[in-house]
Amino acid sequence: MTVSFIASPPSSRGRQQQRKVPEMSAKTPEQRIAQLGLSLPPAPGAVANYVPWVITGNLVMTSGNLPWRDGKLAYIGKIGHEISGEDGYKSCQLSCLNALAQIKEAVGELAKVRRIVRLEGVLGVAEGYKDHPKCLNGASDLINAAFEEKGRHTRMIYTNPVMPLDCASLVVLFAEIES
Amino acid sequence: MTVSFIASPPSSRGRQQQRKVPEMSAKTPEQRIAQLGLSLPPAPGAVANYVPWVITGNLVMTSGNLPWRDGKLAYIGKIGHEISGEDGYKSCQLSCLNALAQIKEAVGELAKVRRIVRLEGVLGVAEGYKDHPKCLNGASDLINAAFEEKGRHTRMIYTNPVMPLDCASLVVLFAEIES
Amino acid sequence: MTVSFIASPPSSRGRQQQRKVPEMSAKTPEQRIAQLGLSLPPAPGAVANYVPWVITGNLVMTSGNLPWRDGKLAYIGKIGHEISGEDGYKSCQLSCLNALAQIKEAVGELAKVRRIVRLEGVLGVAEGYKDHPKCLNGASDLINAAFEEKGRHTRMIYTNPVMPLDCASLVVLFAEIES
Repeated sequence: MTVSFIASPPSSRGRQQQRKVPEMSAKTPEQRIAQLGLSLPPAPGAVANYVPWVITGNLVMTSGNLPWRDGKLAYIGKIGHEISGEDGYKSCQLSCLNALAQIKEAVGELAKVRRIVRLEGVLGVAEGYKDHPKCLNGASDLINAAFEEKGRHTRMIYTNPVMPLDCASLVVLFAEIES
Repeated sequence: MTVSFIASPPSSRGRQQQRKVPEMSAKTPEQRIAQLGLSLPPAPGAVANYVPWVITGNLVMTSGNLPWRDGKLAYIGKIGHEISGEDGYKSCQLSCLNALAQIKEAVGELAKVRRIVRLEGVLGVAEGYKDHPKCLNGASDLINAAFEEKGRHTRMIYTNPVMPLDCASLVVLFAEIES
Repeated sequence: MTVSFIASPPSSRGRQQQRKVPEMSAKTPEQRIAQLGLSLPPAPGAVANYVPWVITGNLVMTSGNLPWRDGKLAYIGKIGHEISGEDGYKSCQLSCLNALAQIKEAVGELAKVRRIVRLEGVLGVAEGYKDHPKCLNGASDLINAAFEEKGRHTRMIYTNPVMPLDCASLVVLFAEIES
């Protein structure tokens, strides 16, 4: 089992976040995402009989987001079997980028987010695999880097025996937005 | 594997919804449900140490709803094994009817729903089965037909290895209601 | 399979709750918890790249809570295999105590809770095990005893093939609080 993707232990978090967000001049979540070398994919429209996001009160809730890149699923299979831990981390990061693209679509710009309230990660994981919480850090680290204090989110992790299209990860976000 | 229950592809959705909701004179969600040849079951009261719905702010949240019909579980077993795909679709539809009955119990009439915000579907699925998202369309199609624009919901799908009473589907709804 | 931990059937609930909350002079949820012979553990701070609770609007939402006791996981393994049904019940109770500790940390005292809105329980369960809903009663019974009418919650149960740190139970709470 490869463990080179290390979850940030509490004592090193400050240092790690400094390394990830080197320029303090960054102003928007989108700019901070770009500083990580990442970008938001286009937000797919409603392609099925449900929609990718809903606003209710001050909350945006998304549907489950798969790890789509350029119209293709980038991570297929179970983490710990076909998918390595590193790729599991990247799959959660990519699912989260897709979720953030939906929130941006909902509100126009990510600066309107007052708080990322809840991250739900559902992972397809091989029997006996133990590092799936570290994989979901791919989503948590992205949220923290992009939103800083406003990214301090609760999270819940699930593993499911069968995933839609056999994807490695699904991510749901609840975000509180300005009135 | 039977695939005759086809999820509505985007290009055919308008046509399909026309077929399902032929009379434009339908006024209430309950009437539209009747037009589908369906009806809301009685909403079971609180039969355990939890309740079937709660209102918080402008949201009604339900507990998980099993596919109850006339006091019996209509769909028992795993979809793709004991339960066919068609019956998986019907199981999700029936779980959703039970969830809608709870929302009606909570607010008096479904016309008070401003928006179905979130559909959570938890399915018991055989290993290797791939069409469970189509099964959950049994719930999504019902919501769309009953609530039209107000039924445009987010959704999340989970699969679980062990289901309560070995039921095929659980459905949770979050609905925004009038103040 | 041991079934001596009996879920409260509807007809016996009043009697059972009387037994559990013998003194009617109890005023706060914390006091009622003490009357059960239980106590809230210290609420662990944010030890990872997410936080244990968030307040949004009038809702406190927690992250998933493991069955921590004195800094150690008290229940490791699958219910129905390494973990008996009785211990599955206790694991859910302990996860719920940890969740309540987080809510107390968020709002100062549990008396500020107007309603426990949603209980999410995720359990690691052996194949073929059927009594996991009774195990989750360990959380529901605690909430009902501690909050009485304000504890009338919706709930959702999930089973997951792989649990974080192989714990037996995760509990999430959504609580409505005073403005």
